[in-house]
Amino acid sequence: MQFSPLIEELIQALRCLPGVGPKSAQRMALHLLERDRQGGQRLSSVLARAMEQVGHCKNCRTLTEEDLCRICSSGRRNQNVLCVVETPADMLALEQSGVYDGRYFVLLGHLSPLEGIGPEDLGFDELLQRLKDEPVDEVILATNPTLEGETTAQYLVELLAGLPLKVTHLAHGIPLGGELEFIDGGTLSRAFAGRLGFATRKDSDG
Amino acid sequence: MQFSPLIEELIQALRCLPGVGPKSAQRMALHLLERDRQGGQRLSSVLARAMEQVGHCKNCRTLTEEDLCRICSSGRRNQNVLCVVETPADMLALEQSGVYDGRYFVLLGHLSPLEGIGPEDLGFDELLQRLKDEPVDEVILATNPTLEGETTAQYLVELLAGLPLKVTHLAHGIPLGGELEFIDGGTLSRAFAGRLGFATRKDSDG
Ligand SMILES: [Zn+2]
Ligand SMILES: [Zn+2]
Repeated sequence: MQFSPLIEELIQALRCLPGVGPKSAQRMALHLLERDRQGGQRLSSVLARAMEQVGHCKNCRTLTEEDLCRICSSGRRNQNVLCVVETPADMLALEQSGVYDGRYFVLLGHLSPLEGIGPEDLGFDELLQRLKDEPVDEVILATNPTLEGETTAQYLVELLAGLPLKVTHLAHGIPLGGELEFIDGGTLSRAFAGRLGFATRKDSDG
Repeated sequence: MQFSPLIEELIQALRCLPGVGPKSAQRMALHLLERDRQGGQRLSSVLARAMEQVGHCKNCRTLTEEDLCRICSSGRRNQNVLCVVETPADMLALEQSGVYDGRYFVLLGHLSPLEGIGPEDLGFDELLQRLKDEPVDEVILATNPTLEGETTAQYLVELLAGLPLKVTHLAHGIPLGGELEFIDGGTLSRAFAGRLGFATRKDSDG
């Protein structure tokens, strides 16, 4: 025996959520049906609007339902520094650490030949365009300290090598294999304060 | 900084799910927005239908979008035994153990003066009506082995004392404080096989 078709369908649908297996999905479905129909209806309606309306900031590519995110539309951010991150969650983690007052560029991923993700998917053209249009004199590469993140950073170092700006990365202190999103504010602060310049080809040649 | 208003609203709405704290809700929202819009849309639509259409079986009170659940509408179930459980999940656990071929009555809760849940909320009148209308000669009380579950069972023992039927409970072997829903089929089978009659007042008097 299973539950009725609609309840089984609900249990299946809940499994699109990360970390939710068959048993959790069943608990969630029964909880909503037995005790929180209003919460379930609200979730349904917010989900529909969010999946439909949330797009990307035209300037930094972070997730937002507005044309420009709050940071890009703020007049108070330092326009001379641009921090490149992989995801909106990474951007949030940096914001919550409170150490950074510049602007962002969100790659929405990292280079990954295996998954077929190349430079054209990560908005590198838009990034170059921003560096032409805006008075940026430092680009901080804050990709994750994973193999893909480091590869992406290295690619960007080469790409930006000819431009009249400093390219830095976050200081070591971030554990290898860790994900920025889960690192505490104190560690992030230290990593920001100790950020280093990249050794570009120009430097090694000279 | 937070996310944009609609994303924040989505994160809040996801917290109606049991076991989902602020950090999990954020991961879920970003996962759907970045990687599975289709899954999110499907979840929204199934949720809306389920919250609207799922009601209770007219006979046994379990959750279903149909008038009668599959068990109540089946001609193959033993009509002489009625098993009383607290929740639809308990009913499913017993069905999955495969030891029981009778029918059910689902209380949708247990007596709890603290939460203001009395006999009128648990369908005791409907239960008595069924015992009048159906050829039941054994009622198995399979409430949870918790304080509230035992209190509910004891109340039912008294309520059914005058009726011409046997009232049994599941054998010991179910761990105290445990929840039926999470007990394995083998333990449930043994508990079923060893079920005991209740000592009613009539028995103790005589
Ligand atoms: Zn932006
Ligand atoms: Zn039924």
